[in-house]
Amino acid sequence: MLHSHNRPVERGKVYLVGAGPGDPELITVRGLTLLRQAEVVVYDRLVHPALLAEVPATAERIYVGKTPGRHVLPQEAIQELLIDRARRNRIVVRLKGGDPFVFGRGGEEARALAQAGIPFEVVPGVTSAIAVPAYAGIPVTQRGMAGSFAVVTGHRCDLEALALDWSALARIDTLVLLMGLRRLPELVRTLQAHGRAPDTPVAVISNGTTAAQQCVLGTLADIAERAAHLSTPATVVVGEVTRLADDLAWFHPEP
Amino acid sequence: MLHSHNRPVERGKVYLVGAGPGDPELITVRGLTLLRQAEVVVYDRLVHPALLAEVPATAERIYVGKTPGRHVLPQEAIQELLIDRARRNRIVVRLKGGDPFVFGRGGEEARALAQAGIPFEVVPGVTSAIAVPAYAGIPVTQRGMAGSFAVVTGHRCDLEALALDWSALARIDTLVLLMGLRRLPELVRTLQAHGRAPDTPVAVISNGTTAAQQCVLGTLADIAERAAHLSTPATVVVGEVTRLADDLAWFHPEP
Repeated sequence: MLHSHNRPVERGKVYLVGAGPGDPELITVRGLTLLRQAEVVVYDRLVHPALLAEVPATAERIYVGKTPGRHVLPQEAIQELLIDRARRNRIVVRLKGGDPFVFGRGGEEARALAQAGIPFEVVPGVTSAIAVPAYAGIPVTQRGMAGSFAVVTGHRCDLEALALDWSALARIDTLVLLMGLRRLPELVRTLQAHGRAPDTPVAVISNGTTAAQQCVLGTLADIAERAAHLSTPATVVVGEVTRLADDLAWFHPEP
Repeated sequence: MLHSHNRPVERGKVYLVGAGPGDPELITVRGLTLLRQAEVVVYDRLVHPALLAEVPATAERIYVGKTPGRHVLPQEAIQELLIDRARRNRIVVRLKGGDPFVFGRGGEEARALAQAGIPFEVVPGVTSAIAVPAYAGIPVTQRGMAGSFAVVTGHRCDLEALALDWSALARIDTLVLLMGLRRLPELVRTLQAHGRAPDTPVAVISNGTTAAQQCVLGTLADIAERAAHLSTPATVVVGEVTRLADDLAWFHPEP
């Protein structure tokens, strides 16, 4: 699709493709090229219908609907499915919201493929952790304001599998919590318990980069109440950079 | 370019576009659409020639070559240029390596545009912080291994402008340092001084996602020596996830 640069698409291979944060035009050129040549597409809940519309009508489409706590297919079955279709010599696209290696369990799928001897390619995607704040006018870094950012997830299964060091996370300039709406009251308590000031500004963006985007601003002290009416998926941003949202908000979807 | 989803491209507007990490096919569909309609393109050092080849021959191309410590144009002059061309009613694309809001000074440019009353759009890009490790077989998050990641930059000008909390950064599961090769000896000393174990695994990837990609693995104790021969730009990844590189490396550019 880029005139001077075309890489082959191979049969018997699995492509772990990031679909991006929501806005379908934020998929990569490589990702779209692969979708248009896919023979099998295995996809998740948060993938935009406009992307699936690019897949050939003859392709096999398999919805595996991974949501926290309720999987249509368990992780191991997804991995077996990818291996099976690759062994049948198909062009297999595993399409994931955001980036496949940012809380997408793409690393586990890559390991299963490597262990089974199946060739694979990773096609990174635009991560919601950066793009959702950007669509709300919030740069995760800003000179003189934020020289570092960190990303965690609010998925129950991921949180319980890991001991996060909240005393360290509380001190990072910009902290982004993906899928964090249900855990927002717990998050704001935890950050304050680890010394983050109650007046630290916070933004919660629901359905970021889509026509349904909503952004609520507040502080660690009041954001849980202010954002209680928002719907999932939502991205939480903690730090001084959220103060820029008022001036830099540029994306105003039609109501 | 996506059949079912086309947004307008407007004159008198500045598009802050992320070019992605190096591989030109990792630009977004939205970014490529804009490049192909651009009337003015203002671009940096790390933008791939294949992307510039997509810009109409009639467009004005302005190289502003931002590298640490040596700018062809000072930041204020870049901002004035963007404002000037937008006021002349052009379709202006500001093309930046990686993502415009991740150490790209995109936030400063957005502020200047907002203050001048110039409409703008942010087109996020695939960040090197995630994609460069991915091309070396390193997921920045992995269940049971890394439930958080943080990103900092080694640019001298950015480091000096900010007091980074290294005792917090040293405790984040996966730490990514962009543009960090020259500061690698200082980084490994600092992390160890703040308690990170000398045998913590580290990867340094130079020219990631391009035909010149090279990856060197080591530990905090020995990586500075092992990676001394690499050329810039380079991305440093610190943490257990770098152990996966041996099994998951999938990108093998032709030598």
